[in-house]
Amino acid sequence: MSGNEIVTDVVIIGAGPVGLFAVFELGLVDLKCQVIDILDRAGGQCAELYPEKPIYDIPAFPEISGQGLTDNLMKQIQPFGAEFHFSQMVANVEKLEDGTFRLTTDAGEVFITKVVVIAAGGGSFQPKRPPVEDVEQYEGKSVFYAVRKMEDFRDQDIVIVGGGDSALDWTLNLEPLARSLTLVHRRDQFRGHADSVNKMRALVEEGRINFITGQLGRLEGENGQLKEVYLKTAGGELGVPATRLLPFFGLTMKLGPVADWGLDLHDNALIKVDTEKFETSEPGIFAIGDINWYPGKLKLILSGFHEGALMAQAAKKIVHPDQKVIFQYTTSSTQLQKKLGVA
Amino acid sequence: MSGNEIVTDVVIIGAGPVGLFAVFELGLVDLKCQVIDILDRAGGQCAELYPEKPIYDIPAFPEISGQGLTDNLMKQIQPFGAEFHFSQMVANVEKLEDGTFRLTTDAGEVFITKVVVIAAGGGSFQPKRPPVEDVEQYEGKSVFYAVRKMEDFRDQDIVIVGGGDSALDWTLNLEPLARSLTLVHRRDQFRGHADSVNKMRALVEEGRINFITGQLGRLEGENGQLKEVYLKTAGGELGVPATRLLPFFGLTMKLGPVADWGLDLHDNALIKVDTEKFETSEPGIFAIGDINWYPGKLKLILSGFHEGALMAQAAKKIVHPDQKVIFQYTTSSTQLQKKLGVA
Repeated sequence: MSGNEIVTDVVIIGAGPVGLFAVFELGLVDLKCQVIDILDRAGGQCAELYPEKPIYDIPAFPEISGQGLTDNLMKQIQPFGAEFHFSQMVANVEKLEDGTFRLTTDAGEVFITKVVVIAAGGGSFQPKRPPVEDVEQYEGKSVFYAVRKMEDFRDQDIVIVGGGDSALDWTLNLEPLARSLTLVHRRDQFRGHADSVNKMRALVEEGRINFITGQLGRLEGENGQLKEVYLKTAGGELGVPATRLLPFFGLTMKLGPVADWGLDLHDNALIKVDTEKFETSEPGIFAIGDINWYPGKLKLILSGFHEGALMAQAAKKIVHPDQKVIFQYTTSSTQLQKKLGVA
Repeated sequence: MSGNEIVTDVVIIGAGPVGLFAVFELGLVDLKCQVIDILDRAGGQCAELYPEKPIYDIPAFPEISGQGLTDNLMKQIQPFGAEFHFSQMVANVEKLEDGTFRLTTDAGEVFITKVVVIAAGGGSFQPKRPPVEDVEQYEGKSVFYAVRKMEDFRDQDIVIVGGGDSALDWTLNLEPLARSLTLVHRRDQFRGHADSVNKMRALVEEGRINFITGQLGRLEGENGQLKEVYLKTAGGELGVPATRLLPFFGLTMKLGPVADWGLDLHDNALIKVDTEKFETSEPGIFAIGDINWYPGKLKLILSGFHEGALMAQAAKKIVHPDQKVIFQYTTSSTQLQKKLGVA
């Protein structure tokens, strides 16, 4: 793997507004960044949950959308050439003997970095687990929350649960491969696009898939291999053959793998930092934005910006312990203006 | 005086970007503000020192001028109806028995407030004192750094020192009142508007004023009453009769009267605050922006925004100790959106 390692000054986990602005502050002190995000584009919660909804409390913007904020930040950090790695999360972190960190993502990318900045907002977006006993033992073997390889679903008895676009889209996409496919939703109304709903109903009409109004009851199988799913319906319990289950119960925010890094936490959910450098209990690992905690903490984007600025000064000392950092202003420093490409 | 007292929740000292955004954060928690500034308009250093110069490190603004930033902030805080009191500074602060503060400005305005927020940036803009021995003993009696009442200059022997617009403007304005007027500048070139320079030269031609190329040497007089000013010129020392001296040596930033409030200071120059509430050593008095200090402090506008947000939560508890503050987001809270006039 070592041939594919990306060596950098700083890895930022999270490409939301706070992670993006951290690129700017780190860039001003000449640090190069790699940015990793579980989503497939920059913007984090802002762009994912409320791209068009106005935000009113970003300083000097009487009103700005999540997407507008993201676009502006992307433009602001453009001079610093950060590289982005989307649709993956850091699965493993390891401190090497020389004090640097080795990060591995669930997509197999490997980073060697002197500084890690966790700017993961509310944490990772993760699928909500259905309220069914023993579901954990089937996860990754016959219960999946996303389809990574469609071939894994060929000639299987598939049960899909949910009423949104994910449930409908995968019903349509997997139907041609499946041995059997059953869509389950608690009522005969869908939140997804009308067009998808119509296509799904047509498949039911043609007898190519089943639709059942009901809820997931219990699972039956062994060694992680699901055999049958029992549904709670108005007519009582109903068994359906199932070798694959795809429950789409929405996304939730979880601290994710970061919870296992051994960092000091607050209330088991937020990463404790100091207010001088926003460093965690592990030297070299910083946490900024909604994911951190200190006395007085407010989960405001503008606070994450401040935290990133102070973090950058501390990161600089770690990466270049021998260089004296002279604090300068973008308004008056020609040196900073050159970095920004405006002087 | 008590009939003229202005009673308020919060007095903010300083109408720079950080003071302005504090109005916003305090407004979100229903606190009413009065804002005092020594300058004659909002914007502080940004608008005074670099109104047209671009700033590059305000988050999500790849570039914005000091004036643009000020204008945006004024628009953002418009819903909260803060009142502004310009061209004055707080000369006196007194803690009353009920725990509120009584502030008096040098213009005689009196405020009764539960919370004081010092957002005075680098401090007050104050005139630079000329490097002349014993000048202090004449200040306010016959040496002035600004003209408050022109009548005080009628029939006086006036010496004005400087080469900028202030020196030129007051030369032109006071000439008709003066018994004699002498303008002194270290060289025969001026930084002021060409038009003012031309008018001044015309007055010299007509013999109505004197212009001398030279520097202030020493003062002569007694009990604060100036009699003569001695100038250092290429031709040697030159005495000029002077009962009023107006030295315009530019402005400097000083902590100002706040230095005498008994607050704990850092390096004798900055106000120490905590990082949870940004409260000073005096409960109820907060300091945000460039004027405060805490470990890690950077004099960045964006840090002042963060400090104002956390301060507002603490101010709310002081003003309404019985109200529970529920932290809300402008993006999702209809209640906040109503305050902002957008819902």
